[in-house]
Amino acid sequence: MSATPPDATAIPGFAAVIPAGGVGSRLWPLSRADRPKFLLDLLGEGRTLLQATLDRVQPLADITMVVTGARHADAVAGQLPSLTEADVVAEPSPRDSMAAIALAAAILERRHGPIVMGSFAADQVIRKPAAFEAAVREAVAVARTGKVVTIGIEPTGPSEAFGYIEAGGALGDTAREVAAFTEKPDAATAERFIATGRYFWNAGMFVMRTDVLLGHLESLQPGIATGVRELAAAWDGPGRDDALAEWWPTLTKIAIDHAIAEPVAAQGGVAVVPSDLDWNDVGDFDSLAGLLTPRADGVIVVDRGGVTAVQDAPGAVVVGGNRPVVVIGIPGAVVVDSGDALLVTTRAAAQQVKNASKLVDNQRL
Amino acid sequence: MSATPPDATAIPGFAAVIPAGGVGSRLWPLSRADRPKFLLDLLGEGRTLLQATLDRVQPLADITMVVTGARHADAVAGQLPSLTEADVVAEPSPRDSMAAIALAAAILERRHGPIVMGSFAADQVIRKPAAFEAAVREAVAVARTGKVVTIGIEPTGPSEAFGYIEAGGALGDTAREVAAFTEKPDAATAERFIATGRYFWNAGMFVMRTDVLLGHLESLQPGIATGVRELAAAWDGPGRDDALAEWWPTLTKIAIDHAIAEPVAAQGGVAVVPSDLDWNDVGDFDSLAGLLTPRADGVIVVDRGGVTAVQDAPGAVVVGGNRPVVVIGIPGAVVVDSGDALLVTTRAAAQQVKNASKLVDNQRL
Repeated sequence: MSATPPDATAIPGFAAVIPAGGVGSRLWPLSRADRPKFLLDLLGEGRTLLQATLDRVQPLADITMVVTGARHADAVAGQLPSLTEADVVAEPSPRDSMAAIALAAAILERRHGPIVMGSFAADQVIRKPAAFEAAVREAVAVARTGKVVTIGIEPTGPSEAFGYIEAGGALGDTAREVAAFTEKPDAATAERFIATGRYFWNAGMFVMRTDVLLGHLESLQPGIATGVRELAAAWDGPGRDDALAEWWPTLTKIAIDHAIAEPVAAQGGVAVVPSDLDWNDVGDFDSLAGLLTPRADGVIVVDRGGVTAVQDAPGAVVVGGNRPVVVIGIPGAVVVDSGDALLVTTRAAAQQVKNASKLVDNQRL
Repeated sequence: MSATPPDATAIPGFAAVIPAGGVGSRLWPLSRADRPKFLLDLLGEGRTLLQATLDRVQPLADITMVVTGARHADAVAGQLPSLTEADVVAEPSPRDSMAAIALAAAILERRHGPIVMGSFAADQVIRKPAAFEAAVREAVAVARTGKVVTIGIEPTGPSEAFGYIEAGGALGDTAREVAAFTEKPDAATAERFIATGRYFWNAGMFVMRTDVLLGHLESLQPGIATGVRELAAAWDGPGRDDALAEWWPTLTKIAIDHAIAEPVAAQGGVAVVPSDLDWNDVGDFDSLAGLLTPRADGVIVVDRGGVTAVQDAPGAVVVGGNRPVVVIGIPGAVVVDSGDALLVTTRAAAQQVKNASKLVDNQRL
């Protein structure tokens, strides 16, 4: 994956925020609470998902900020040496995406005055960086008008794995009003969505002015608005820890989709920039496999030192380990040998891997 | 598995011979050329298959002899401290079962004069040792009359995995003439065999007088007869190595079934003692699994230190390793973590594991 072209110029007054949270439990045992998905080089390209995200957004922004859990702050800073200490915001505990993004907005506004920010998750893959850059530039332009802007992914099929953005009337070159956000649909609904041509995948990318975001919060989630303003006021001084102790636990745990995107869309305040990004959320081993190039025999081999041999197992995926692995008679087998644990499943069952860690804990009881 | 009851008395003038050969390639990666199946404690009962075979036959015999490959002779002797050096016959190279059994017969006859010998493979499981003892006693009695006697396993179903013995007229309490031996049948033929009630599984157990065996060889395989008599004449003196160098490479590679059992049966010289032994050849991971007691959740766990957790994988078999293993969405999965290699397959595909070692070698090219 190439990063944004080196001739990209930063968008004046634009801050890129990277929320780096979430374990990625469907990628167990590669991902763990103490080595979440975003810290991993899942594609074997020499850059972790977090680093690749920074490579993509940093050239477009005057300011880049990562919001992550306190337990991962050192690892994040270590992977991103171009960031200063001020650029890494550590949350004492996870309080969902709204708290993370609102805190970033409040700190940015306190430091720089009202500014346009974009929020881009740390654990997604985008194979068309030029299209991404164009989408961000248009999203920033629309955001300056006061809209909350999301980048909508052109669907490649009727996936049930994602929420959808329903587009309304045109707003600019490609930007459109957002009629509504939907939860993950069932198969029939997803088919219907795709047939209309008006639905895009929701990748959780939001671009908006900090003052617009904080203004919406004041009416929709006033507790969060108050809390993050108090935190921001203390953030760059000696009172940060006291403020965190006082205000962080009061913040409602809610996703930005429910707190802002859905209600503001209902008021006509959200726009979407549809874009064909060759996007992948690397959500499970099946989607990871889809990003990788198979061997001549169709087997996908990742990060292995040992021999991998299969018979009657087309599309098998074998990850990790230095020992010989033989897979026989399981089409689409997924074998992940992480050193300290072993997962055996199929690409068809890949979503169920989210239970793996709990299954192990239950057996340990 | 219990051994033969301690009150068993040896059968006068009876020698038990245990051919210990064959890798057990369908049990890769547990079994390897340098650690064949018979040297393994596959059931986790504290005795290897070879040791359990000795436990079963030694109390019934005046003399017990193991014939094995030279590379395994030290391991065999180490596992069987009750045997003397003279009781372990080392073959310089594998020349199939007829050479091994004929050499044992010739050595036994040279040492003891004509004697009744029984040949019992080192890698089978018999769960009814009292029935085995009774069958051997009857087989020896019939063998004294000059017959080649095989112990036929009462089939538990129409298996395609075994050759069959077709019984003819009655010969004694339970012994019957053998009409013919057959190769492994297809499913329809196996069904037909079982329906007749006249067919038994061929477990390769043969009981006969050494002079009867060597006499048949003189007419059917005169080269083997000459070779093993020359070897036996030199075996217990200083000329063993020279004799092996001269005669061993001349011995035809042929199984006892083809060399003796089939042609002698056609002449009316073979008898069968049918027996219900709860016999299992531990031929592959499916048959191994059938010998083991599942956990409460139906999973079969063998020789594991680590946690084993499954979801939507009824009948899964997980062998070896100290790491957590999670299996999701593969009914009858077989996962064998041998330390130096990993096998992932299903119980339905267990027979195909015979290719595993070759698959690895092909990938290494």
